[in-house]
Amino acid sequence: MLDIVILAAGKGTRMRSAKPKVLQTISGLPMVAHVHNAACALLGEKQAPVIVVGHGANEVQDYFADKSVHWAEQTEQLGTGHAVRQALPYLTDLQTTLILYGDVPLIQPETLKALVEKCNSAKLALLTVNLSDPSGYGRIVRDTQDNSIVAIVEEKDASQAQKQIREINTGIMAVPTAKLREWMPKLSNDNAQQEYYLTDIVAMARADGLAIEHCQPQAQWEVDGVNNRHQQAALERQFQLNQANLYMQQGLMLLDPVRFDCRGQLAFGVDVCIDINVVIEGVVELGDGVSIGPNCVIKDSVIAAGTRIEANSMVDGSRVGPHCSVGPYARLRPGSVLQHSAKVGNFVEVKKSVIGQGSKVNHLSYIGDCDMGSGVNIGAGTITCNYDGVNKFKTTIGNDCFVGSNTALVAPVSLADDTSIGAGSTITKNTESNNLAIARARQRNISGWQKPVKK
Amino acid sequence: MLDIVILAAGKGTRMRSAKPKVLQTISGLPMVAHVHNAACALLGEKQAPVIVVGHGANEVQDYFADKSVHWAEQTEQLGTGHAVRQALPYLTDLQTTLILYGDVPLIQPETLKALVEKCNSAKLALLTVNLSDPSGYGRIVRDTQDNSIVAIVEEKDASQAQKQIREINTGIMAVPTAKLREWMPKLSNDNAQQEYYLTDIVAMARADGLAIEHCQPQAQWEVDGVNNRHQQAALERQFQLNQANLYMQQGLMLLDPVRFDCRGQLAFGVDVCIDINVVIEGVVELGDGVSIGPNCVIKDSVIAAGTRIEANSMVDGSRVGPHCSVGPYARLRPGSVLQHSAKVGNFVEVKKSVIGQGSKVNHLSYIGDCDMGSGVNIGAGTITCNYDGVNKFKTTIGNDCFVGSNTALVAPVSLADDTSIGAGSTITKNTESNNLAIARARQRNISGWQKPVKK
Amino acid sequence: MLDIVILAAGKGTRMRSAKPKVLQTISGLPMVAHVHNAACALLGEKQAPVIVVGHGANEVQDYFADKSVHWAEQTEQLGTGHAVRQALPYLTDLQTTLILYGDVPLIQPETLKALVEKCNSAKLALLTVNLSDPSGYGRIVRDTQDNSIVAIVEEKDASQAQKQIREINTGIMAVPTAKLREWMPKLSNDNAQQEYYLTDIVAMARADGLAIEHCQPQAQWEVDGVNNRHQQAALERQFQLNQANLYMQQGLMLLDPVRFDCRGQLAFGVDVCIDINVVIEGVVELGDGVSIGPNCVIKDSVIAAGTRIEANSMVDGSRVGPHCSVGPYARLRPGSVLQHSAKVGNFVEVKKSVIGQGSKVNHLSYIGDCDMGSGVNIGAGTITCNYDGVNKFKTTIGNDCFVGSNTALVAPVSLADDTSIGAGSTITKNTESNNLAIARARQRNISGWQKPVKK
Repeated sequence: MLDIVILAAGKGTRMRSAKPKVLQTISGLPMVAHVHNAACALLGEKQAPVIVVGHGANEVQDYFADKSVHWAEQTEQLGTGHAVRQALPYLTDLQTTLILYGDVPLIQPETLKALVEKCNSAKLALLTVNLSDPSGYGRIVRDTQDNSIVAIVEEKDASQAQKQIREINTGIMAVPTAKLREWMPKLSNDNAQQEYYLTDIVAMARADGLAIEHCQPQAQWEVDGVNNRHQQAALERQFQLNQANLYMQQGLMLLDPVRFDCRGQLAFGVDVCIDINVVIEGVVELGDGVSIGPNCVIKDSVIAAGTRIEANSMVDGSRVGPHCSVGPYARLRPGSVLQHSAKVGNFVEVKKSVIGQGSKVNHLSYIGDCDMGSGVNIGAGTITCNYDGVNKFKTTIGNDCFVGSNTALVAPVSLADDTSIGAGSTITKNTESNNLAIARARQRNISGWQKPVKK
Repeated sequence: MLDIVILAAGKGTRMRSAKPKVLQTISGLPMVAHVHNAACALLGEKQAPVIVVGHGANEVQDYFADKSVHWAEQTEQLGTGHAVRQALPYLTDLQTTLILYGDVPLIQPETLKALVEKCNSAKLALLTVNLSDPSGYGRIVRDTQDNSIVAIVEEKDASQAQKQIREINTGIMAVPTAKLREWMPKLSNDNAQQEYYLTDIVAMARADGLAIEHCQPQAQWEVDGVNNRHQQAALERQFQLNQANLYMQQGLMLLDPVRFDCRGQLAFGVDVCIDINVVIEGVVELGDGVSIGPNCVIKDSVIAAGTRIEANSMVDGSRVGPHCSVGPYARLRPGSVLQHSAKVGNFVEVKKSVIGQGSKVNHLSYIGDCDMGSGVNIGAGTITCNYDGVNKFKTTIGNDCFVGSNTALVAPVSLADDTSIGAGSTITKNTESNNLAIARARQRNISGWQKPVKK
Repeated sequence: MLDIVILAAGKGTRMRSAKPKVLQTISGLPMVAHVHNAACALLGEKQAPVIVVGHGANEVQDYFADKSVHWAEQTEQLGTGHAVRQALPYLTDLQTTLILYGDVPLIQPETLKALVEKCNSAKLALLTVNLSDPSGYGRIVRDTQDNSIVAIVEEKDASQAQKQIREINTGIMAVPTAKLREWMPKLSNDNAQQEYYLTDIVAMARADGLAIEHCQPQAQWEVDGVNNRHQQAALERQFQLNQANLYMQQGLMLLDPVRFDCRGQLAFGVDVCIDINVVIEGVVELGDGVSIGPNCVIKDSVIAAGTRIEANSMVDGSRVGPHCSVGPYARLRPGSVLQHSAKVGNFVEVKKSVIGQGSKVNHLSYIGDCDMGSGVNIGAGTITCNYDGVNKFKTTIGNDCFVGSNTALVAPVSLADDTSIGAGSTITKNTESNNLAIARARQRNISGWQKPVKK
């Protein structure tokens, strides 16, 4: 029923970037990937859109290496009509073809569905929008009698009266494919830019007796294109605000919706509160009653009910159990698992470790490659020495251990349940249950010490 | 002279919360507490408002456990008129009754005072507001001759002409109590919702020959209600902006008023500068010339003149003396006292400790339960080992001590004035004045060491 | 050709500050310094503007101690006319005099150039602006015939019709100096404020047959004055937004232009991305493809191509080589040099040190006054003990060294290439190549240890 062509050949000179324009990101995802996602939402799994690439074709193709895409190449940039022509071999005549743009990233599937439904073999469907300031855009000229669309008039060709028209052409359109194939060779580049304009098919459609239908997006940002960093930043903020609004509708408490960034997907229970300036990345799940303090970055993690992530913390690739306390200034790196009521405090880094139920690592510690039982207390300044320069080793800490402050645990090492470690020890040998392990030089107090003097 | 009824029985389905709606917070304080504060500002200390509770009644009552409140319960949600009826037993006939709403949190006492003054035994006073988009609200219909208020017409009953009226009913009103008692039983639920509407008393008042007075708030946000997370977030930002504006008027320099949150009370001297994204909580006092760097969180603390809190620091429950330097990345926890010109630097946690005049804890240290004199220098990586797993112990450090880096001070322990500690020592025994204490294993250099190889 | 007078004598009572108003800052620079910069852009290097000081004269003069300025003093605040009169001795009659204001900080040189070009011996030129709300300002009254400027009418003297005029006087003007000198003694203070108003010269010019020319700024913020903290904050944000816009036009990717502060100068290559809430200070240079994570503060540093500064990091006075990784929670202090592909991780402070190519300091360390070779691995919790209380000493670490965790390196100390250090050691003696240095007490495991009980 449907083919989709995404035009993605542009350079984007005004972005002043070494990357092709359509790989510029919104919310961390290339613009063309947003469009590809919208296209796939319409096409379903069995079909793939055609992407027309040009500038930076290889980079764009590399990005989609794992995705199903038909590639058409436009080696010279001779206009949108010329671009669409490169895609013709992939299109099926019985179908409708939907034309999208890799630099119009936030178009919504619902809008496209409505547009496609307006198109059939006797009808072309244009996506139009009303702008408060239409200058620069092609105006939609309508018949004064029946209000049907007569033509698209470009700014430079528009009469004074036509310039007053606020309805403009977005470029997105649904076209009967057989007709598209018929019209493409007839496009002319006899214009100032010497380009082949896709919009010229509107006149051809009219001439062939097709009706020109139209459809409008829910919001203008759906059809906003990106040609420079201002527009990119504007759509970035619009995208983030859209998400904030969606999540608030679902019950998320955001202390400042304009200081919230979600570059991925957020799922959450009831009574979740996110303080100012938080960044969510990847896939994050927050249980009932979770609160996230100011300036936290949470990525690819699951945080269970009742847990509080204090200010200035970072959680990445971790599973945090219920009723835990994390931070402030805690960093959980990938592979961290905190069990029920565990506590990780300030200036603590945890990596690929389990912190057992109710265990505490409250201050200035590095816990890496460690399997820690429940009820453990780790003193300030404890370091698991998990790396010998080439290999990583594991530290095992049994239940109810007490590790004194400023201790180095040289892995591989294992502390049995109920081990106590004296502060300031470097532990290299395993302990047995109820051991006190201590490795400490004798303190000498030397009297009458002369403090150093300025050299 | 005055009784106040606060309607607080609603569920707030659209908040998607397990909490009753009126306990949802603005600036950290439940909405109904904001309204209670405004009510108490009018009532003075001798009188208490009536709060009508329903959904989550116990939770609301628990919140006000320490406050003086009369509780009325509305077990079924049969409309605002029905809610007010539950409060009748607490009202005095000779008085005026002011009706407030637990989900209209930012109403100002000045506005309420003006409203109440318009009410007497012959006059009902409505709080109205003009909205640019009044749709959905009850319109204030006025007499074309004398402009007096004739009726409140609900949206669904409004004529086209009435729908153009931009003056709407906020629901807040001051009513002669005797009349209120007389009217309540006459309310009917013969309407689509089968609810008893309080606004019906306007028609009754008119019928009884009372004048309908009105009053308007200074700003629309005073009468904005909260039914969903968007509205909650909008009032949160409005509240914060109001505070920012108030503080700027008093001379506070805010580098970005829209990135400032004060969830409590801030007092400050002259030439105080607060950088971007700072959060103030509880009761905070900042002396002349204090500057707070970006992303700091300051709570329940007093910071004296000339002190600089550097970026990314957190100060809670602490007293910081004049001309101190704190941070960046410093965390002062409750009970910290910094004396004149003390310095606490990056990745340092201080808890329940005194840092004496001019003393320095510049890097990566944990100082807990410590009494430190003046002129002390604490080396990087110093830990006070204040906890044995069950008990906390104290560390005492005399004046002008020098504690070498990577030192563990095992409390209880006391360093006399002018003690020096060798780097890397674990100190368990007290020192005397001018001691050098050192606890260090002898260094061995083993030649021809083969580095580990990849396993 | 040109003299410039900057009026900078005001007190600024509404700022509620101990500082003279013109020393209040925008983007970290005193307002009068912004104006001085604009003036110098017109005057070139050989000439200096006249600054008229009054309140806090000494402080203002101190600020400009290194700059070329002519100082005029206005000991009594008797109006703008009186202020300009103090500057007369410094002005040359053959020239044009441009009058600027120390509390109108964002005036642009291009605007001033255009204004000055409109002035000659027969013409006075006013800078005017159209305001949507002109109330409070002097209105520009024009001739109904030829539209020439006839007079400036102050608010209080304005007729109802004149109050509708939206074109107002900014106070900035270019005046033929000989005429200015002639008019100054004729100014009268016969008005409500008993002040000498500079604007009265417009009437004198008209009377003397001079034409009154005018010019308008590109944007209103150029002529916005600062009298209170609200206006200061508004111009701060405007200034920051202007910079964000300029940098985006040059290709900078800003994830949120309204959460970006640059208090200095930023140079950058292509594909530089700055995340939310970043603060730039001083002179900063970012190479191609550099990315700066959320909440970073970057000051006076050069960061080479391909380097990533992770969230919550601070870089000051440092040179970071290409393809380095810094942070999160890293702090580079002045004098830090990171060579190609070096890595500084979380809760690490580096000061006045070289981190060689590919070397890693990943966790909780303090590296100060250290010269580190390439390929080094520094374990977590490593401290360079560079300070004996009065002197600083240097640590040297050769290539390919491996420093075990929780190590104290007591400077002065030197590790030869390929040294390995056992975890938990305090190193005081130099090593030779391929040494393993270790300083560690023997571990004892004491069985049957009774844990402490609650006291």
